[in-house]
Amino acid sequence: MKAEIIAVGTEILLGQITNTNASVVARALATLGIDSLHQQVVGDNPERLTAAIDLAAHRADLVVLIGGLGPTKDDLTKQTLAAYLHVPLVVNFPAHENLRRYAKQSGHAMTPNNWVQAKLPFGAQPLTNHVGLAVGAIASRGPQHFVLLPGPPREFEPMVRDELLPALAKLAGGHAVLRSRVLRFFGIGESALVTQIADLIDGQTNPTVAPYIKDFEVTVRVTAKAASDAEADALIAPIAQELLTRLAPYCYGDGDDNSLAQTVVRGLADRQWQLTAAESLTAGALQGALGDVAGVSEWFKGGFVTYSNATKASMLGLDKATIDAHGAVSEYTAKAMAKGALRQVGADIAVSLTGVAGPGPNEGQPAGTVWIGVATAQGVTAQEYHFAGTRNSVRGRAVKAGLFAVIQALQK
Amino acid sequence: MKAEIIAVGTEILLGQITNTNASVVARALATLGIDSLHQQVVGDNPERLTAAIDLAAHRADLVVLIGGLGPTKDDLTKQTLAAYLHVPLVVNFPAHENLRRYAKQSGHAMTPNNWVQAKLPFGAQPLTNHVGLAVGAIASRGPQHFVLLPGPPREFEPMVRDELLPALAKLAGGHAVLRSRVLRFFGIGESALVTQIADLIDGQTNPTVAPYIKDFEVTVRVTAKAASDAEADALIAPIAQELLTRLAPYCYGDGDDNSLAQTVVRGLADRQWQLTAAESLTAGALQGALGDVAGVSEWFKGGFVTYSNATKASMLGLDKATIDAHGAVSEYTAKAMAKGALRQVGADIAVSLTGVAGPGPNEGQPAGTVWIGVATAQGVTAQEYHFAGTRNSVRGRAVKAGLFAVIQALQK
Repeated sequence: MKAEIIAVGTEILLGQITNTNASVVARALATLGIDSLHQQVVGDNPERLTAAIDLAAHRADLVVLIGGLGPTKDDLTKQTLAAYLHVPLVVNFPAHENLRRYAKQSGHAMTPNNWVQAKLPFGAQPLTNHVGLAVGAIASRGPQHFVLLPGPPREFEPMVRDELLPALAKLAGGHAVLRSRVLRFFGIGESALVTQIADLIDGQTNPTVAPYIKDFEVTVRVTAKAASDAEADALIAPIAQELLTRLAPYCYGDGDDNSLAQTVVRGLADRQWQLTAAESLTAGALQGALGDVAGVSEWFKGGFVTYSNATKASMLGLDKATIDAHGAVSEYTAKAMAKGALRQVGADIAVSLTGVAGPGPNEGQPAGTVWIGVATAQGVTAQEYHFAGTRNSVRGRAVKAGLFAVIQALQK
Repeated sequence: MKAEIIAVGTEILLGQITNTNASVVARALATLGIDSLHQQVVGDNPERLTAAIDLAAHRADLVVLIGGLGPTKDDLTKQTLAAYLHVPLVVNFPAHENLRRYAKQSGHAMTPNNWVQAKLPFGAQPLTNHVGLAVGAIASRGPQHFVLLPGPPREFEPMVRDELLPALAKLAGGHAVLRSRVLRFFGIGESALVTQIADLIDGQTNPTVAPYIKDFEVTVRVTAKAASDAEADALIAPIAQELLTRLAPYCYGDGDDNSLAQTVVRGLADRQWQLTAAESLTAGALQGALGDVAGVSEWFKGGFVTYSNATKASMLGLDKATIDAHGAVSEYTAKAMAKGALRQVGADIAVSLTGVAGPGPNEGQPAGTVWIGVATAQGVTAQEYHFAGTRNSVRGRAVKAGLFAVIQALQK
């Protein structure tokens, strides 16, 4: 099956928003083995949208239309698709019932607009929106399928993942279910990872194995089509096991919405441990990342940003002359910072980061040199890293490496 | 002039990278009054790329091709364009001379590939790449223009801004120069801002006035075409002045690469002041943002992440019972945190942030309630905010509001 993605919206043509939806749905389709050879962007204009749909329908079996499903006069994607397919727009009663349920849950009254939003091209299969009012749909014409998806990413992404992909898996393979498992890795580059699992990526069609890199982390998605959840899981399990065996030192967790910071917080909760931190080059960014996790306050009461040797000494109860003698970026200082923070806060585990963010060298050490220390009641360790890239890339990698070091210590 | 943007790259079709370049160039073209009605994405395939170019050439005067300018066999955009235009690819000597200069500067030896990279469609005008080896170009066929741009954003963005836009300004208007000035605002929503300056946006063709929102900040770009820099600046000045008059309370600076954090650091340098911070809900993210600015270490020696009332008291030398009595999210606590941090570090200015990030309420206060305090030797102030959105949106807005509060205090 070949797909073509059409994003609809004048604000994309003007560059006011970036077309992130296209890459999200393209990546999702790829897990089903559905490639696309073309993407289009077109404004909220019925003539040009009709031409775009027609062009796509001549090149692809699956035409995915994104945006323009709202209730205002600018929103005309489903009207245009219905006209193109020569079918009327009619109220879809299951969709309307879902809207009524959603409105009740979120405390909104139903309005006449809700009838407009529940209208779909005649014969289309609705895609439920659990976080908003725009109803998605799959309209079919013989072997060809046309998909309607809402534009706002917070409605779009769950609809793609939870509604569209399972429906397409059925259409594409006659299978009842589509399941995927995402494994998350840190500390290995994408090309090194791909090299180690090239045979699994190339050799597999069900499940598929798809690596993806973002923000210095690599995820690998294993997706299976099968007749039942149990069958799909049985297809996924040996491949996931093989990935974990080959890439064990780098795996820190799984799941779509997981992150290093969430894994740290879960690990702290498991051990009932309090964390603290002393950050130099990252200047609070690691603690800031922990703050992203709801519920972290139970396991993190506070920490230090010790940017100068003087604050390293005064805040962490260390001797400035000794830090000066060893240098701010050294094994000694990383260990002393972690131990000092642990002691000052009375925590169970402390992480310290000190390094040269750049752009230039510092104290004779090149930009990218970073020491990360971890202290617990059992003792203190420190490790040296050399990160490439700009100042912010070095700091971003250091934050992730610090979180990964905490995870490893928690798993000991 | 109508433009059409074609991004070339299989990795975009697979969703492995997001097509950010298209929005960057679309936004840039809009400042020249050049709109586009269509965008396309196509893979590294000469037949499909030829068809995409031909389709665009039938709908637009300006066809912008992005990506596929590298020296590998996958990179065939300029070869395909040359074939489409029925012209040979020839070494462009000014481009080759620039490559030689760039290689010398960056300490690389020239290779045979450099000859390939210096080849352009016969008659094309080169666009210089100051940060990489891929040479851009504008090839013209009668009144129609075809632009070649490199894919990597760090090469693409400066080429669009510094090379393509001035060249297009000449082509479009016969003007010698294109200048723009970017004003930066915080604390006002995009729609409120647009309402206040709607007459300037709608009434202007030279200069154009283009607002843009990103990461809770609004920028307004004023762009003029003229025969000389001085003439362009003279066109920009009264509009910029009018914008500043109407939006004075929200303006914090100007420039493309500016940020609230950079403006804070510049303000500290002007006053020769040391800053510190005590962060609760933002958990270090404000200090982390300051760490993004090279050279901040002279004006920021460290600060505190005080997530619990106990660490607020112990780290900042406050009385926990009094904090408990007033509540963590209160005017009292925000002021006490700022004063405490100022005193502990011996700094000249301290900012404090305490609030309810959410998702749920805390201590009876709804998510989004934030108090920000600023202390100097002259005294302490605190202000209450109510931010909408998710936990991370509340925290992100709080960081920006904290930086803005420091800027206002520094400008007093």
